[in-house]
Amino acid sequence: MTQMLEAKKGNITPQMKRVAEREKLPVEQIAEGVARGTIVIPANRLHRNLDPMGVGTGLRTKVNANIGTSSYFPDIERELDKLRLAVSAGADAVMDLSTGSGPDIDRSRKRIMAVSTVAVGTVPIYQATVEAIEKRGSIVDMTPDDIFEVIERQAQDGVDFMTVHSGITLESIGRLQKQGRVTDIVSRGGSFLTGWMLHQGKENPLYEQFDRLLEIALKYDVTLSLGDGLRPGSLADATDRAQIQELIILGELVDRAREVGVQVMVEGPGHVPFDQIEANIKIQKTLAKGAPFYVLGPLVTDVAPGYDHITSAIGGTLAAVAGADFLCYVTPAEHLGLPTPEDVREGVVAARIAAHAADLVKGVKGAWEWDLEMAKARKALDWDKQIALAIDPVKAARYRKERNPEGIAACTMCGQYCAMKIVADYLGKPVEYC
Amino acid sequence: MTQMLEAKKGNITPQMKRVAEREKLPVEQIAEGVARGTIVIPANRLHRNLDPMGVGTGLRTKVNANIGTSSYFPDIERELDKLRLAVSAGADAVMDLSTGSGPDIDRSRKRIMAVSTVAVGTVPIYQATVEAIEKRGSIVDMTPDDIFEVIERQAQDGVDFMTVHSGITLESIGRLQKQGRVTDIVSRGGSFLTGWMLHQGKENPLYEQFDRLLEIALKYDVTLSLGDGLRPGSLADATDRAQIQELIILGELVDRAREVGVQVMVEGPGHVPFDQIEANIKIQKTLAKGAPFYVLGPLVTDVAPGYDHITSAIGGTLAAVAGADFLCYVTPAEHLGLPTPEDVREGVVAARIAAHAADLVKGVKGAWEWDLEMAKARKALDWDKQIALAIDPVKAARYRKERNPEGIAACTMCGQYCAMKIVADYLGKPVEYC
Repeated sequence: MTQMLEAKKGNITPQMKRVAEREKLPVEQIAEGVARGTIVIPANRLHRNLDPMGVGTGLRTKVNANIGTSSYFPDIERELDKLRLAVSAGADAVMDLSTGSGPDIDRSRKRIMAVSTVAVGTVPIYQATVEAIEKRGSIVDMTPDDIFEVIERQAQDGVDFMTVHSGITLESIGRLQKQGRVTDIVSRGGSFLTGWMLHQGKENPLYEQFDRLLEIALKYDVTLSLGDGLRPGSLADATDRAQIQELIILGELVDRAREVGVQVMVEGPGHVPFDQIEANIKIQKTLAKGAPFYVLGPLVTDVAPGYDHITSAIGGTLAAVAGADFLCYVTPAEHLGLPTPEDVREGVVAARIAAHAADLVKGVKGAWEWDLEMAKARKALDWDKQIALAIDPVKAARYRKERNPEGIAACTMCGQYCAMKIVADYLGKPVEYC
Repeated sequence: MTQMLEAKKGNITPQMKRVAEREKLPVEQIAEGVARGTIVIPANRLHRNLDPMGVGTGLRTKVNANIGTSSYFPDIERELDKLRLAVSAGADAVMDLSTGSGPDIDRSRKRIMAVSTVAVGTVPIYQATVEAIEKRGSIVDMTPDDIFEVIERQAQDGVDFMTVHSGITLESIGRLQKQGRVTDIVSRGGSFLTGWMLHQGKENPLYEQFDRLLEIALKYDVTLSLGDGLRPGSLADATDRAQIQELIILGELVDRAREVGVQVMVEGPGHVPFDQIEANIKIQKTLAKGAPFYVLGPLVTDVAPGYDHITSAIGGTLAAVAGADFLCYVTPAEHLGLPTPEDVREGVVAARIAAHAADLVKGVKGAWEWDLEMAKARKALDWDKQIALAIDPVKAARYRKERNPEGIAACTMCGQYCAMKIVADYLGKPVEYC
């Protein structure tokens, strides 16, 4: 029984209770959302040490961090450090995007599952591709069975959600070819499948055999995250016919998943100009009938490599305000290389800022109180409290310590000319100034 | 003759020509904007080495970086380094916010003016306050003449624009007191003047003797930047009656400045929830009859000390999309201490990202082409071009070099599974993969 089937039957599961507790919402609201499909709880029945969270309408906007080894950086210990760092920085989920070799990917995933208390996602087509090259010499000789065997193997390990690019079809690729693009396809999974389909002249197995996918998802309660293989890789390609065609197909697949009780969310762009972001979210919500929306960015400009945690925090805030439920972090290393642990921390915090800035205006429970507490601590020049309340207390404490060696009540930006202090003196609540 | 008086007479100045050239717009459009007051060209007639830029409707969104010594960090060489760094990172203007001692402030400013080819702004009340403490023992014993003497001295040094908190009046402070606030007044200049007014029981000299201010501004063509002394210092105080009362008064002062031909812009918040930003910009534009709007942030959450370059880039993008013309950078050190040179660079780039993300959707000339060039360079895996086009080529080059020691065509995030490469192979334009 999946969370959705339980909810449809009117049953309250421990996972729903835990989500309700974390969100400070009535459990009935969670169960209703799960039954309707506007909330998902990615919780594979075999992920024993999971502390479950929910994604969807009415809930706090969640943040995902991508980790994983690659052939250039095969060290799993380093990725486990990133996992711990991401979780301590406040990530709500991680995706293991390991590539490298097939056995290495299995090992990485098992280690990550054993450690992670947050939901773990994967993109099984990565491993299927790596193994096809190892076993058969090339991506294009991969068989549909190869793909589904990997999906089941990963589900057995307890993976909570999986990105499946089922909307890349002969139809949507045809639309892309007819129209043309500046950056064609920038999704890795999308490019593997497109290469395979164009070479084989066959339909995408993740679309053609979608029922087989649903069977595995049902068995383990894997939440499907319908990937946007045709997401725009540049502003010039944003919100084009290929992207929207794929989204229409994903909407149809959402219906099919919900019919059998499989939890499902939809992934979205990508590189999108600021003034197209709201439309992207609204159209996803209508086409996919309110399915939770998991956005990759959106990045509001192409020209800022080294700062794409910022370009995506800008787009992510507006996306979440418009209704996106789940933000995939982007690190400063995006478009340039694999992130370091420090990049991971910066990426998680930037995405959390976007999520929280949106939650403040979405009316998410508890969001407003956090800022109010900080405002009061600032007014009182209570530095310990300001640091404790900071979204990243470690960085805030480091800055304060480095810049204020004398431990003064004000800060070294204004020193004795601190507005807080002067106004307190004149509006009747003097502050001790050491 | 100020730029505005020249424009009103139908004269085209070298400054207008240079602005037109930099913006790739007809000089008549610049002159019309300057005559109407929707564009300002901060260009003190005594700032000899200035390469002038314009701020206002139809122009590229500009970015300002704050620098300046303080009693804790009196080293002017370090601030000159920040100036050079800010300009090389793309700042369009700098403000010298030096405090410390009166003679030090004079020295800093003269050094900065001598070096700076970008417009230089100041907040004269800072120096007036420091000197009042030195001469008279306290802020509250400052005389109106002290203030105007400093303003004229700074104008004589060639300062191009000055923040004057003329909208802090007995009326607007009364509104604040009647209503109450969580963080009262967070503007330094605002707090000095409020302290003075409450202690003396007198009206703000920058309001009462506004004509005296206009005379000095006329003489040197100093652009007045009407400061928002009552800007909100927390989300809880945003868009309240005190803030809007001050804005109404600033709107009246805009009329008075324009009548005599003084260039004028208006400063804005502050800490503002995302869903109130557009309203803030629209109401400024109506109350101040289209005067250029110079925003300090806005920061979309209070809880992210250490990351306020990001919280302000989020708010700044939406503000600029809604019509703000000039973004004051915020560095990661905001709320914690004086920024280091590295903080300055991060702050300038974050603000430029916000400005550019907005210019893309405001239809600013040349904005779209930049992103298109980058998209093409990405598609071609042309790394030299990607780095040359990056908003911060230094950081992009460093990341690329550190993460890709072997100089491979793809990057170490995807390695041989690079989507760009695979799609190029299968859609007919194979990429050489070394």
